[in-house]
Amino acid sequence: MRGRWMKHKERLAEYAGMVEAGLDRLLPLDGLRQDQVMEAMRYSALGGGKRLRGAFMLEFCRISGGDVQAALPYACAIEMIHAYSLIHDDLPCMDNDDMRRGKPSCHRAFDEATALLAGDGLLNRAFETAVSEEAAGRLDAARVLRLTRELAGAAGFYGMIGGQCIDLAYDGRMPDLATLNELIALKTGALIRVACRMGCIAAGASEAQIAAADTFAARLGLAFQIRDDMLDVEGDASVLGKATHADERQGKTTYPALLGMEACRQEVDRLTGEAVEALDQFADREFLTELAWSLTSRLK
Amino acid sequence: MRGRWMKHKERLAEYAGMVEAGLDRLLPLDGLRQDQVMEAMRYSALGGGKRLRGAFMLEFCRISGGDVQAALPYACAIEMIHAYSLIHDDLPCMDNDDMRRGKPSCHRAFDEATALLAGDGLLNRAFETAVSEEAAGRLDAARVLRLTRELAGAAGFYGMIGGQCIDLAYDGRMPDLATLNELIALKTGALIRVACRMGCIAAGASEAQIAAADTFAARLGLAFQIRDDMLDVEGDASVLGKATHADERQGKTTYPALLGMEACRQEVDRLTGEAVEALDQFADREFLTELAWSLTSRLK
Repeated sequence: MRGRWMKHKERLAEYAGMVEAGLDRLLPLDGLRQDQVMEAMRYSALGGGKRLRGAFMLEFCRISGGDVQAALPYACAIEMIHAYSLIHDDLPCMDNDDMRRGKPSCHRAFDEATALLAGDGLLNRAFETAVSEEAAGRLDAARVLRLTRELAGAAGFYGMIGGQCIDLAYDGRMPDLATLNELIALKTGALIRVACRMGCIAAGASEAQIAAADTFAARLGLAFQIRDDMLDVEGDASVLGKATHADERQGKTTYPALLGMEACRQEVDRLTGEAVEALDQFADREFLTELAWSLTSRLK
Repeated sequence: MRGRWMKHKERLAEYAGMVEAGLDRLLPLDGLRQDQVMEAMRYSALGGGKRLRGAFMLEFCRISGGDVQAALPYACAIEMIHAYSLIHDDLPCMDNDDMRRGKPSCHRAFDEATALLAGDGLLNRAFETAVSEEAAGRLDAARVLRLTRELAGAAGFYGMIGGQCIDLAYDGRMPDLATLNELIALKTGALIRVACRMGCIAAGASEAQIAAADTFAARLGLAFQIRDDMLDVEGDASVLGKATHADERQGKTTYPALLGMEACRQEVDRLTGEAVEALDQFADREFLTELAWSLTSRLK
């Protein structure tokens, strides 16, 4: 069991390395007058994060029989979108967070204007990457279009940004469980779901497989957020790389606040079980199964 | 002459109306929990602006023999990107402008967090629109891809955002003319150029025509910015819909500051002449010619 998990950890590290190298290449510093903002884009997009979204995309592509290299630009694009959302979320007018991934948040390391533009730059660069000649070189135009359409939909007003908007609308008020579920499904869930879907689409998987990947991601995304909320209560700030009890301080409604810690633990297990069940559409599901269960007890 | 210009003004109004109706449809308020941010998106994207970028795109499509309806989603997308850039530019950490298009800027009418998300939402929505089923319904996938690639490139780090970055880097310092030209070519020019290019591309125009549209737009875009700077000095705030002398107050380097007003006037005429000359690749160039010359004496 332990040996097998080590093997999986190596694959996860390999995917993270591919995404990191891809981002390094797609976000070059090349002596332009505007390079200060590229430095901020690189500061936030490189050298940190679990790269789970990228890894999910690449693995779903692989187990759907696709060319992982063809999915790589999209894995990088989704990580750019994730990074931009964190930069803008951390800004003083939003969550006003000073730390992120164990280092000062972008606007603390640079300044607010630079962080604003770095976020804009990463969001825009994600779409440049998605429709680039490089991306289109390995896939036909119709598939590139569908991938970009899925990405844009999940990141936008009807996806991740929509979740941030609801978060903002309920700032200081206590949403009920239905509202919190909707908020999380959009704010965190949409990007995780689309990562898994896009891996399948890049590989030309069947609609049944795309739907299964979607279910896997929806369940796991919610479990992931609940675990995140739990870590804000019981985690170790030095391991997490950011302050704990931030939700409480900011008056945010969280799953532990609504359900209590013990019920959260059970929810995480139940949802992860359902996520893993959805994988029965795929023959080679060992890595995703182990990864999903490993996330239930993660410490950061 | 006057009668002909009235006819052109009608066409400009018709294009603006098409873009306005398109934006109204693409940015619906439909009772979602996140609607407050859509209200802010609509506040900034609808009901104002000259819609020059949209009009250029639709006209270049028309005179290249294309279907104007096929270009309309892209005209709306480019106006969304223009609107997002103004929202983020007006934020306190950037230019801190209170007024825009004769009404309070987005963060003054709503709040900073809402304005931040409204900007993000519009940028993202532009790309959703560019790759939407609707856009793809009238053009083949390869052309949709090229249009989206052009749009993303012009809006991003190597285009408009890059210009904003240079602007930021020179904040409080006096750039020389070469730097100011580069800044303006990116910050204002890139989006105007791509609007004209995309109109041709949507119509399947020749590469020579695309290049001619690009030259027209590059010259006119610079003339437009010089005129903008002049209006900040000599314009009427009540006509402009925003405060004058803002550049001076913010210590921005402008063309009048570098060249003087009389040389600016000559530059605007010279550049507009060159822009109009580039139109010789098109048979039906009356509207663009008149529009270009009308901009040299605009009061807002």
